[in-house]
Amino acid sequence: MSRIAFIGLGNMGAPMAHNLLKAGHELAVFDLSASAVQGLADAGARSAPDARAAVEGAQVVISMLPASTHVHGLYLGQQGIVPHIADGALVIDCSTISAATAQAVAQALAARGLDALDAPVSGGTAGAAAGTLTFIVGGEAAALERARPYLSAMGKNVFHAGGSGAGQIAKICNNMLLGILMAGTAEALALGAAHGLDPKVLSDIMGKSSGRNWALELYNPYPGVMENVPAARGYSGGFGVDLMHKDLGLAAEAAIASRCAVPLGELARNLYGMHSLSGAGTLDFSSIIQPLLKDQLY
Amino acid sequence: MSRIAFIGLGNMGAPMAHNLLKAGHELAVFDLSASAVQGLADAGARSAPDARAAVEGAQVVISMLPASTHVHGLYLGQQGIVPHIADGALVIDCSTISAATAQAVAQALAARGLDALDAPVSGGTAGAAAGTLTFIVGGEAAALERARPYLSAMGKNVFHAGGSGAGQIAKICNNMLLGILMAGTAEALALGAAHGLDPKVLSDIMGKSSGRNWALELYNPYPGVMENVPAARGYSGGFGVDLMHKDLGLAAEAAIASRCAVPLGELARNLYGMHSLSGAGTLDFSSIIQPLLKDQLY
Amino acid sequence: MSRIAFIGLGNMGAPMAHNLLKAGHELAVFDLSASAVQGLADAGARSAPDARAAVEGAQVVISMLPASTHVHGLYLGQQGIVPHIADGALVIDCSTISAATAQAVAQALAARGLDALDAPVSGGTAGAAAGTLTFIVGGEAAALERARPYLSAMGKNVFHAGGSGAGQIAKICNNMLLGILMAGTAEALALGAAHGLDPKVLSDIMGKSSGRNWALELYNPYPGVMENVPAARGYSGGFGVDLMHKDLGLAAEAAIASRCAVPLGELARNLYGMHSLSGAGTLDFSSIIQPLLKDQLY
Amino acid sequence: MSRIAFIGLGNMGAPMAHNLLKAGHELAVFDLSASAVQGLADAGARSAPDARAAVEGAQVVISMLPASTHVHGLYLGQQGIVPHIADGALVIDCSTISAATAQAVAQALAARGLDALDAPVSGGTAGAAAGTLTFIVGGEAAALERARPYLSAMGKNVFHAGGSGAGQIAKICNNMLLGILMAGTAEALALGAAHGLDPKVLSDIMGKSSGRNWALELYNPYPGVMENVPAARGYSGGFGVDLMHKDLGLAAEAAIASRCAVPLGELARNLYGMHSLSGAGTLDFSSIIQPLLKDQLY
Repeated sequence: MSRIAFIGLGNMGAPMAHNLLKAGHELAVFDLSASAVQGLADAGARSAPDARAAVEGAQVVISMLPASTHVHGLYLGQQGIVPHIADGALVIDCSTISAATAQAVAQALAARGLDALDAPVSGGTAGAAAGTLTFIVGGEAAALERARPYLSAMGKNVFHAGGSGAGQIAKICNNMLLGILMAGTAEALALGAAHGLDPKVLSDIMGKSSGRNWALELYNPYPGVMENVPAARGYSGGFGVDLMHKDLGLAAEAAIASRCAVPLGELARNLYGMHSLSGAGTLDFSSIIQPLLKDQLY
Repeated sequence: MSRIAFIGLGNMGAPMAHNLLKAGHELAVFDLSASAVQGLADAGARSAPDARAAVEGAQVVISMLPASTHVHGLYLGQQGIVPHIADGALVIDCSTISAATAQAVAQALAARGLDALDAPVSGGTAGAAAGTLTFIVGGEAAALERARPYLSAMGKNVFHAGGSGAGQIAKICNNMLLGILMAGTAEALALGAAHGLDPKVLSDIMGKSSGRNWALELYNPYPGVMENVPAARGYSGGFGVDLMHKDLGLAAEAAIASRCAVPLGELARNLYGMHSLSGAGTLDFSSIIQPLLKDQLY
Repeated sequence: MSRIAFIGLGNMGAPMAHNLLKAGHELAVFDLSASAVQGLADAGARSAPDARAAVEGAQVVISMLPASTHVHGLYLGQQGIVPHIADGALVIDCSTISAATAQAVAQALAARGLDALDAPVSGGTAGAAAGTLTFIVGGEAAALERARPYLSAMGKNVFHAGGSGAGQIAKICNNMLLGILMAGTAEALALGAAHGLDPKVLSDIMGKSSGRNWALELYNPYPGVMENVPAARGYSGGFGVDLMHKDLGLAAEAAIASRCAVPLGELARNLYGMHSLSGAGTLDFSSIIQPLLKDQLY
Repeated sequence: MSRIAFIGLGNMGAPMAHNLLKAGHELAVFDLSASAVQGLADAGARSAPDARAAVEGAQVVISMLPASTHVHGLYLGQQGIVPHIADGALVIDCSTISAATAQAVAQALAARGLDALDAPVSGGTAGAAAGTLTFIVGGEAAALERARPYLSAMGKNVFHAGGSGAGQIAKICNNMLLGILMAGTAEALALGAAHGLDPKVLSDIMGKSSGRNWALELYNPYPGVMENVPAARGYSGGFGVDLMHKDLGLAAEAAIASRCAVPLGELARNLYGMHSLSGAGTLDFSSIIQPLLKDQLY
């Protein structure tokens, strides 16, 4: 069993930390929210007064923060933890952030001689609670092998995408594509319905044809086509519009930095962005069909 | 066995007609190309001097033409065949055309009391030759039951999309979605590759994640990721850029007519259109990745 | 003074017909709305029981109808007027319709040996009432010279765009560009305002720089920047979202027919279309800034 | 006359520095290119061995660098100049960079108590040589008044956009709008020409109508419509595709940071980006019409 510092106890981080505790590890935790810290302390974690204190003597450092700016501050800010991490420790950042920040953090950790991984997750809060997350990992293969026991305590699938930053890139590529699949599926279903087709029949036909995709088959956005999806419950729960909008922003930033063209990806970013501005930011992202429906089903 | 009039013997129509002959039907055929007609005549069809002569006495009329204007002319033009089709005949138009034209033809045939179906296909010239096409059918269920033996001689799958025109709508919805999937998949792979990821690794990760879709898994556009796809042979063969561009135009026209918004669909139309203008019209549509690649792989 | 048949007495057609009466011409009018006809009859026009009766003996035929389908029906439908127009008459269609329909009508009239013009207008209902419309004309130069006196009674500017259909094409090119200018200007102002710039200061700077355009300078969409524009009165009056959406649809149809790429034009079509679906169809088209504003100014 | 440190002597910076010399100021200059430094030394400037040496004792510091990363390094890097600038000096950064970087630099200079301006320019290398640049300035009004004599030596127009960073924002808003105007104008002209209109006639009509804009009137992209524009000389000279692409990237980054939607702006970014990938990066940005032309005029 290992001594782990876990920093960031939000909707994702808290259940992940709980699963590490359950697996028998010794945890020192920190979060700006005292109540979040208390929740873990009640379950047996040591509460640290700040991030530096949390990483003191830890064999493994895991962070799960909302955005690039927080990760930059934690590792590279004026009070950053990089100089305070113990020699030989393994560092795993599970936040979804820009590849540029992931690489800057990785460089600073490499300069210390530490093993470091960017390991963003998919699976949402439900996957975090159930310990069934998917990790998409960037970094050295050897570091990944060291990390497997901890990742296995929190998740089910681990993909090795490549070197430092590759985990972030692979995740944003996937999520950009997902944002396009969902919006494209919504357009096709709305167009068919406007011409009198039954969206369920059309979904069946496309699901057996070349329009087949994850969003159509497992997460159908048209109300009434599938049960047990957000469209069946007023688009509550699921993966929020604002989270998809954030991920599409990361994809666009990566494209701008590398002078890539992602015309559908950036258009999708704007579609989710306008949907959020209209007040739908906390709805599930499959609600992107709403602005396309003529009969105001919603 | 039935007396069938088959009109339109192009790359798709000719092999479809051959399969009907092989199934034992008696065919009268017509096409503007004498050599196309000769090909079928050599195989045992009766060659008719014009479309009117072909449909004379036929129990079934099947047409397979390039675009709306040809179908409009064949059925509704000044020399149109509607008045010349025998009472009680079944009419099946397999062309991919606008829903508006399909409905206009259906109305004229209904006024004659004839059973009529719009039955556009997918599966390409290979499917036409092998008799493994998929038919997406609009029209009455009873008419579809009458048509099954003939469709089965030419294809493998039959979907009933709804009433008149629904076959065309379902096909263009599917193909619009396919155009989006392919272009979106191309963007995601090009973005990942520009950041140093191996497109094969990234394809594997997305194929097991929420980016999963038909284009990624069965028709990967990145050269070297899959064998036996157009990307593995310089984008030759397959489904051409110009055909995808045409289908996206039909989708856009349907959206305009019904005041639907299909922002990704229309952007995809323009991407394939610009790709065609650059000289790529006859390449496979997965070549849409070419304008996105930095290293000029092509 | 001439005998004129005027068909279509809607918000645009009625004031145009009144101006022809004022100029001393003898009018025979028809519209499906009896009250619209009565309004002109009260002003001295002869009310005709149908379009055929209206054109009987007329030296000039002018039509002003809502869309392609109405113009097609009037001239080319089963009860179409083409065979009933007097030899030597001049025909002017002022409707904004598809170039394809304009050309089909022009061909039928040319086959009769009649002079024909497509002459869509800009200037809105205010320009129609004031007699200050702009006509964008397609057709022979000689026919245009014959038409000038009548056009001058209804408008101020006349542009000769080219042969038959060119008036429609020029108008939809201009209006597509206008739709892009307005939406692009809205994006630039909303982006600046979100970063704390005063939209009036930013408008002044761009108006003296390379961002200068008609929408920015004369029809600013940001509330509070200009007086006497729709943005200053809750986007009432002006040129409606639904009318812009229709014109962008005509532009897209023309692009599809000619295999042109108009990516910004078609994206603009979808932006106005989604705005209309959200309930804004009757607001002025400069309200396209609303879905972009963070602070929900509207 | 003042002691000025001028850092960055590229295509823009060198002629700007020459104009300051001509106005009688004393210059200390630095650039990584020795030949660029020599050019100014030959004209009477003192050549400094590095940036720190250049700013030593300067009353005014002016920088003109290619991108955010260079400006960040110059001011805020490990060898940054901020601590070395003399008390009371005025700092003017003329580079076109991200608003975020501009604000970070401004904060560091404000912490030193120094007057600082972001003052990006338009007018290109020709304007830099002729001393007719336009400056769009962010910062305190008092600082701008101090700066006027120096700006006047290099340019003709000065706009005050607002506080720190506002100059950058105003410039990228304008240039994003310009990128849209140019691409939209190109689409309208290409659509008209594909339907047989004379692009010159269409330009005249739109220039007198609501499609009027800077790109159409002063910088027409269609070959043959205007003289003395890049379209008249094979798109050589002018404002390059890659520069427009860079500015649209800055606009997209600003939109992402502020959660703004700029759908046309980001689509324009991708259009110029794909145009650059096709090999047109060094052509004038009005060459964005090339991928739209059917007859391969270019």
